[in-house]
Amino acid sequence: MHIKRIVHAADMEDIAVGGAIMGTGGGGDPYVGKLMAQQAILKYGPVKIIDVTELPDDALVVPVCMMGAPTVMTEKLPQGDELMNAFRALEQLLGRKIDAVLCGEAGGVNSTTPFVVAAASGLPLVDGDGMGRAYPELQMVTFTLHGVSATPMVLCDDKGNSLVLNTVSNAWTERLARAATVEMGGSALLAFYAMDGATAKKAVVRGTLSLCADLGRALREARAAHEDPVQAIKAKLGAEEIFTGRIKDIERRTEGGFAHGTARFEGVDGWRGQTLRLDFQNEFLMAERDGKVIVTTPDLITLLEAESGNPVTADSLRYGLRLVALAFEASSAWRSPEGIALVGPRYFGYDVDYTPFVPSS
Amino acid sequence: MHIKRIVHAADMEDIAVGGAIMGTGGGGDPYVGKLMAQQAILKYGPVKIIDVTELPDDALVVPVCMMGAPTVMTEKLPQGDELMNAFRALEQLLGRKIDAVLCGEAGGVNSTTPFVVAAASGLPLVDGDGMGRAYPELQMVTFTLHGVSATPMVLCDDKGNSLVLNTVSNAWTERLARAATVEMGGSALLAFYAMDGATAKKAVVRGTLSLCADLGRALREARAAHEDPVQAIKAKLGAEEIFTGRIKDIERRTEGGFAHGTARFEGVDGWRGQTLRLDFQNEFLMAERDGKVIVTTPDLITLLEAESGNPVTADSLRYGLRLVALAFEASSAWRSPEGIALVGPRYFGYDVDYTPFVPSS
Repeated sequence: MHIKRIVHAADMEDIAVGGAIMGTGGGGDPYVGKLMAQQAILKYGPVKIIDVTELPDDALVVPVCMMGAPTVMTEKLPQGDELMNAFRALEQLLGRKIDAVLCGEAGGVNSTTPFVVAAASGLPLVDGDGMGRAYPELQMVTFTLHGVSATPMVLCDDKGNSLVLNTVSNAWTERLARAATVEMGGSALLAFYAMDGATAKKAVVRGTLSLCADLGRALREARAAHEDPVQAIKAKLGAEEIFTGRIKDIERRTEGGFAHGTARFEGVDGWRGQTLRLDFQNEFLMAERDGKVIVTTPDLITLLEAESGNPVTADSLRYGLRLVALAFEASSAWRSPEGIALVGPRYFGYDVDYTPFVPSS
Repeated sequence: MHIKRIVHAADMEDIAVGGAIMGTGGGGDPYVGKLMAQQAILKYGPVKIIDVTELPDDALVVPVCMMGAPTVMTEKLPQGDELMNAFRALEQLLGRKIDAVLCGEAGGVNSTTPFVVAAASGLPLVDGDGMGRAYPELQMVTFTLHGVSATPMVLCDDKGNSLVLNTVSNAWTERLARAATVEMGGSALLAFYAMDGATAKKAVVRGTLSLCADLGRALREARAAHEDPVQAIKAKLGAEEIFTGRIKDIERRTEGGFAHGTARFEGVDGWRGQTLRLDFQNEFLMAERDGKVIVTTPDLITLLEAESGNPVTADSLRYGLRLVALAFEASSAWRSPEGIALVGPRYFGYDVDYTPFVPSS
């Protein structure tokens, strides 16, 4: 385990940066989750991290996350308490004490929100998640592949409203929770996918909090040493540089609450004369270089500013930015036929088959 | 109490017709609710009706209803079981046995749906409701005026999904339940507004099932005796005929899931040369004769076919129909300042003050 055993408020900086890189352009603003986590750690104390193998088979593990668009409120960050409300309400519903907290997704805002619950509850946080990245829909977790039901799920808003959902499938959980989140103003806090330790050992993508912490540290240390931060991240991820270029144009449209779009790049440096097209639905889901598809979901595509190495979200893409695109392999859990059915390119409406990406570097 | 003490399947015919009259043009298709109730009564046995005064003060009373657009499925009427699922789930949540069933609204489909639960559970059904008519939103019940919370509420669909809502206000219950109902395909089954007998005695609009049964019987008997069915209904309601005419034009628009519109009539018979304008949002909410507002919500406006006396819904209004418009006084509960704030003309966006309607006949 590369992440510290005990995480203090200052350690959240690296984790949030790593979460943004693993967010592959989406996953929400990790800054919000970082502030929430830091606030909770300062108030309740540091968070203990455990490996999933340390869980007893009969332990009760519960992931928590924020759904929708996280926004920093002007007067307060209200979601800390509401996340705890969702967690405690689910615990009461399940009728037994929860033993550990888990991340639903390791990319974006939800790489850090579970620290809030771990700090406030004093429970350990598992070094892993249900995606090994970020995805836009609730059912898109490796837990689904292992037959874990998303429900009973508790969903809370910042006004004091709460819902308990019991659904016939995790896809229905997504539909009903999405409708409620939109009505609640676009953001809600969830506790769901309760599972035992034995299931968690099979279903969790392991070590993703360690990876987030590693990525953040690598970026920070490279800068301090005046080394190339992009190369540091690339090495840490075992990623391939698939392009370096400037954005030539961006198309965006909002459909069903998701930010769909396409960004086109013109190559610079070694990529001069070549083009890259990136398609996104919150996250970057498909990369086409010179008209040929080279990477698709579930494999990961992340964009970094060429100079600083800072991760760039699909939301913040704008004309002229000079960016490096890295691609790397998805967790093996996603590469099964069931995984591809759940999060492969066809699920997202792209008319291509999944071909596993193999980094050349 | 004018309704029979014991209601059999055949008795549902009159009640459903009366429910359509009290539906004031909206409230959903009572035919669907009637079939559901008849099916349940044939399966489980007849329904016992009680007056609200017969409830012990510490009795637990629970209204049930259908939300959204009731549609008859081609293969089955699935909502009977789901209504019972919602009822039993709320009972379990409340941790004690429910003693009686109640109607949320006495107009339209929900004048009959509670018979399903009363039949299946063997519990008595209270002769009353929370509106004394039909209204489009969940918070629009006299229960709200008496401080009864709509939540905890259980909402079920026909697929097996269910939600438990806990909200900070009954207006929030409406918002979140509406969003879920739309996502579930437009129709859901609810158990909500749990209250004790003492509260029910204050909050319930009394005798509305009796009134529905009376209206249906009056219409049936007038026809059998070749008497004027419209006059029979008018007398039973203590209503005033505010117009008889033919529809000249209808405007419709759908906003926020509700059927908004305006129907304009030209007078016939004694009303020749005069005009009537009816504004509706599911229900008929305002009548303007010769340019002057004469009736608004919460007072009731209902339309009958001039010949048959059959009630006509806003949905089925079409050019050329010869109709009689009746108006009558709302339950006194609605005529308070709090009642007018909740369901008066300004809540629905009409720029007029409420003036109590007093039938001249």
